[in-house]
Amino acid sequence: MSKKILIIGGVAAGPKTACRVKRLLPDAEVTIIDQDSLISYGGCGIPYYVSGDVSDEKELRNTSFHLTRDESFFARAKGVTVSTRTRAVAVNRQEKKVLVEKLADGSREELAYDQLVLATGSSPNRLPIAGADLERVFTISDLHQAIAIKELIAKGQVGKAVIIGGGAIGIEMAEAFVDLWGLEAAILEFMPQLLPRLVDWEFAGMLEQHLQEKGVEVFTGEGATAIEGEDGRVRRVVTPQRTLEADLVVMAVGVRARSELAREGGLLVDPQGNIVVNDRLQTSDPNIYAAGDCIAVKNRLTGKAGIAPMGSLANKEGRIVADNLAGIPTRYQGWVGSFTLKAFERCIGATGLTLESALAEGFDAAAVTTAQSDRAHFFPTQAVIPLRMVFDRQNRQLLGVQGFGPMGDAVLARIDAAAALLQQGATIDDVSQVEMAYAPPFATALDALNATANVADNLASGRLRCVDNAVFLAWMDDFASRPDWVALDIRHPNEASVLVEKFGADKWLSIPYIEVRERFQELPTDKMMIIICDAGTRSSEIQIVLDSVGLDNNLVLGGGFNLIRRLGVSWLG
Amino acid sequence: MSKKILIIGGVAAGPKTACRVKRLLPDAEVTIIDQDSLISYGGCGIPYYVSGDVSDEKELRNTSFHLTRDESFFARAKGVTVSTRTRAVAVNRQEKKVLVEKLADGSREELAYDQLVLATGSSPNRLPIAGADLERVFTISDLHQAIAIKELIAKGQVGKAVIIGGGAIGIEMAEAFVDLWGLEAAILEFMPQLLPRLVDWEFAGMLEQHLQEKGVEVFTGEGATAIEGEDGRVRRVVTPQRTLEADLVVMAVGVRARSELAREGGLLVDPQGNIVVNDRLQTSDPNIYAAGDCIAVKNRLTGKAGIAPMGSLANKEGRIVADNLAGIPTRYQGWVGSFTLKAFERCIGATGLTLESALAEGFDAAAVTTAQSDRAHFFPTQAVIPLRMVFDRQNRQLLGVQGFGPMGDAVLARIDAAAALLQQGATIDDVSQVEMAYAPPFATALDALNATANVADNLASGRLRCVDNAVFLAWMDDFASRPDWVALDIRHPNEASVLVEKFGADKWLSIPYIEVRERFQELPTDKMMIIICDAGTRSSEIQIVLDSVGLDNNLVLGGGFNLIRRLGVSWLG
Repeated sequence: MSKKILIIGGVAAGPKTACRVKRLLPDAEVTIIDQDSLISYGGCGIPYYVSGDVSDEKELRNTSFHLTRDESFFARAKGVTVSTRTRAVAVNRQEKKVLVEKLADGSREELAYDQLVLATGSSPNRLPIAGADLERVFTISDLHQAIAIKELIAKGQVGKAVIIGGGAIGIEMAEAFVDLWGLEAAILEFMPQLLPRLVDWEFAGMLEQHLQEKGVEVFTGEGATAIEGEDGRVRRVVTPQRTLEADLVVMAVGVRARSELAREGGLLVDPQGNIVVNDRLQTSDPNIYAAGDCIAVKNRLTGKAGIAPMGSLANKEGRIVADNLAGIPTRYQGWVGSFTLKAFERCIGATGLTLESALAEGFDAAAVTTAQSDRAHFFPTQAVIPLRMVFDRQNRQLLGVQGFGPMGDAVLARIDAAAALLQQGATIDDVSQVEMAYAPPFATALDALNATANVADNLASGRLRCVDNAVFLAWMDDFASRPDWVALDIRHPNEASVLVEKFGADKWLSIPYIEVRERFQELPTDKMMIIICDAGTRSSEIQIVLDSVGLDNNLVLGGGFNLIRRLGVSWLG
Repeated sequence: MSKKILIIGGVAAGPKTACRVKRLLPDAEVTIIDQDSLISYGGCGIPYYVSGDVSDEKELRNTSFHLTRDESFFARAKGVTVSTRTRAVAVNRQEKKVLVEKLADGSREELAYDQLVLATGSSPNRLPIAGADLERVFTISDLHQAIAIKELIAKGQVGKAVIIGGGAIGIEMAEAFVDLWGLEAAILEFMPQLLPRLVDWEFAGMLEQHLQEKGVEVFTGEGATAIEGEDGRVRRVVTPQRTLEADLVVMAVGVRARSELAREGGLLVDPQGNIVVNDRLQTSDPNIYAAGDCIAVKNRLTGKAGIAPMGSLANKEGRIVADNLAGIPTRYQGWVGSFTLKAFERCIGATGLTLESALAEGFDAAAVTTAQSDRAHFFPTQAVIPLRMVFDRQNRQLLGVQGFGPMGDAVLARIDAAAALLQQGATIDDVSQVEMAYAPPFATALDALNATANVADNLASGRLRCVDNAVFLAWMDDFASRPDWVALDIRHPNEASVLVEKFGADKWLSIPYIEVRERFQELPTDKMMIIICDAGTRSSEIQIVLDSVGLDNNLVLGGGFNLIRRLGVSWLG
């Protein structure tokens, strides 16, 4: 008799498991049930559907060869049975049966399984504030919500949108509203920065600056305390600082695992509600596997398990579950946390831990920021791509990389290479030597990622001292706070002169890079000099020059003006 | 007394070593000598200078902050003494002195060193054929040659250019001639494909097809046997097959190490003429280091040492030499062979070994080819990027990756990630799980690199059987050669119908993917079926379906029509 494999959940991990296991065990009876009517869609494409880039929601459910992944498709192409609008009510592990209910008529039946897969996904969080249940307060939980949002906009019923949550989905939705529909949009983020825990504040700051240039209002460190409506429909979002008009609200404040079924079935679930699995993605019942947003996944860097709700992981996990169902003992190596995001004309990406996260996890972590070219400076499409590298000072292990640049795949290339290195437990010395492909239209002879590793090496080896960017910016906003500091601007005097005039020649010293070896006697010995150039590279060299003549009263501004300028600070004018 | 470090060679590895060692040892006396008048230039930018993308040769010698790296720059900014037009005549290792000659006046002097660095680079090969020394037969050895070529073109003295050598430089020069100057250009490559040893023939074939579309004539398997001239100036290039008119010839047929000085100084030099170094880049004399094109570098994958003449490696090697000069025992991990190349509107790249090289090196190697999307199929800039993965069947070690796609950084991202994995000795199972950054504008949920690793896994595990592409193409050119074969085209009948008509319904079977499970009884049991789709993915699934019903008389065409179409085969017409 052929093996019965039952899969609960039909969006990402479920279908992936089903199709792979059917290829490994062509004789297996594979069934997917899902309570929704729409299955196997690219949820990450929702913002592009709302924006209009994707005209029909079916495109999100289509294969690359233009077939819609519906029940009929799974039956005919894959040999997999799919029951939509079918809710799993309870798992009877003793008898290996799942009680299901047909939502159409409320009828119930028991489905037997030899092996069960839970791919129940996650539910979007909804803030426990007044008005959270008003009409036109949406979460981006499924395609139906997306369709409803797009209909409202298309009918001209939305002028102002407020997005609660400055994570990836919130930012993508803001772009969808503003760029193609011309709506007004504001993002509220309770944490002090956008993309909290995904990038450090400098990188969030560059992104925020660009969003604001594009007309998106961004309020960080500011949470919604209430949503107000009229006639049951949203009208305003209230924060401690202001009240924002809103015809539509998107609440994108994270997700939580859907694990009720697992918990009620007696499976081990962690305190956060994630289904506990081993590295073969097996639950505490060896006949039950789980994959996707509903499980606690081990982070490769911290060794800790937690929710990792990403479509790219769901696919990898689904494959691993299928292997194990078929007797191939594939083990999941764990996740590192790679992400990337388009925001208007910019791209931001990261992999691994931020400095903040790494320190919180107990690493003896440090970070460096560079702002070098993505390709040869003479190649027409050349652009600066600030990169940040987080590493452990003790064992020099790479812990994370962040990148920001113009829209395109230049940042992606560095993040993907870094993700591969993180997976392999590489050190910054390994990164220094990685042989990134080089030709002038694609990279610099020493790639920006290699160069950033070299800066990390210099810092780790005590050959580089940097000023904290936040401390520097605070000083610029209030000179009085550090009367013992001056800036040493080593750019061309034409570039430095504006700031010399603005801040005075006693606070803003200008000696060009090439003249420092000849003119260092002009420099103060009793004040801390913050050495500033465009990318940070020249400043590091000048630090060594000054140290060698006894002027070690200096710190480098890593990333230099290339970073500062992208943060949109007011004093740069 | 401060340490005297003498560096012979001022293009890439030399200046890199000089600047880094001066930062590590600010008190050292660091001197570079070079026989040329122009130093520290981006030689890889020469094609972009010739094309006109770079208007002034100085841009190739400039820093990103617009200072020209001449003697004065090195003295003032770096504290490094540079003597140009100064030739090293002999090394006296006993006395630690180098005899040098000033080319301006023939005067000679001895320069003392504590440590010596040989960064003497390479010389371009010149074929030993009649006419190789005619006027207007150029090698791309240095900036002077580039300046001379550009002057001739700018004066309108070149209508037809012949390039001998179909490697990266030859292809870049062909684009430079054709794209911006509108010249006629032909490439002659003695080996049967472009980019020999860098990519397998399918990838060279896609590139060749694009070059021909852009008007570059490409003749592979065809070497120049003579160059003919008039009045001492080139007029024609002769091959066994034809005679090509030529107002200018570029000979780009590889380079050889410049190691006379090392050999005459009694240092160990390998039979190919490369300076032998250990993994700290120290020669057989512990006081002499060497870096760049002149050394034999260990390949990480094969363990063998040989010339690796790439600017990106020279930079890495220079840093390692500097570290060791300063007492930091950095070791070179060896190279893997990453490269990338722009050719008009396409990009090609690779890292590691080709299948051909891997087999020649004794690996039990196999390769798979995919042709999937670089990003979500619904995202406007989506394109197919054929990828090829070479691996060892025994231990599943990753050996190489090749990629081809539209101009941009999509291929780069996958090659750079693969390069990082090769460096770390990863397996195809590691590649399957690498967490490539995902969002629809940048990747597919399961990235093309992950997907290719999964196909490699299927092949390695005996779950996929592919037809050799060359064998398939030979069959298509001559049906009579395999009367026992038929094609099974599983694309939409609208797509398949042209070929069904052309080749006959008995040779070209058409059953759409989604109907195969229902209609397999129509298929032959006595002929080998070559299953064909667009990307190869559906074909792999159908292979499993057919096998499961006893029809294992089938093979998959990896990469499918996405690959075949890019090879420009005539029968697709």
